[in-house]
Amino acid sequence: MGEVKHLCLVKFKEGIIVDDLLKGMTELVSQMDMVKSFEWGEDVLNQEMLTQGFTHVFSLTFASTEDLTSYMSHERHAAFAGTFMAALDKVVVIDFPVVIAKPAPA
Amino acid sequence: MGEVKHLCLVKFKEGIIVDDLLKGMTELVSQMDMVKSFEWGEDVLNQEMLTQGFTHVFSLTFASTEDLTSYMSHERHAAFAGTFMAALDKVVVIDFPVVIAKPAPA
Repeated sequence: MGEVKHLCLVKFKEGIIVDDLLKGMTELVSQMDMVKSFEWGEDVLNQEMLTQGFTHVFSLTFASTEDLTSYMSHERHAAFAGTFMAALDKVVVIDFPVVIAKPAPA
Repeated sequence: MGEVKHLCLVKFKEGIIVDDLLKGMTELVSQMDMVKSFEWGEDVLNQEMLTQGFTHVFSLTFASTEDLTSYMSHERHAAFAGTFMAALDKVVVIDFPVVIAKPAPA
């Protein structure tokens, strides 16, 4: 069994200070050993028809479904998720085992 | 400048044979040298409230924005995108420079 990703696409409410949330998320993730890696990004092409208003992507990688479950059910995640969700106008979350169809060159 | 990702979240129309589209996508990507890597996955937790009906994620990684642009404007991509988009009930596309907030252990 390979890696599992927890992916969030979000649109923040107006007036939200994204840097503060990012700081909180980075701090949380750094404390949680079951999170293998964490990357994020902000849409640059701004094609409203395609992004549907979503502006940011947050992607957490886990070594297994067990690690994902242990993260999701952790009280620190629950505490942060409450604050985070309250800052969002829209969100989509998808959890999926990663299938590597074209590996990065070594 | 680091990597750039082209991320698609989709919900397929009823009756679509996903394997056929995946085969086409994998073939396309394997022919396009500017695509550094390609991974995909299917949601496993099925939390409708969070997934909003989206079921699959497709993620292409490029070494630079120039490579992404060259891929997006390539006629082979345009040809495939037409077929692909016609198979979708819903889609969100986000293009973003990757910020690594917690790197995977070496």
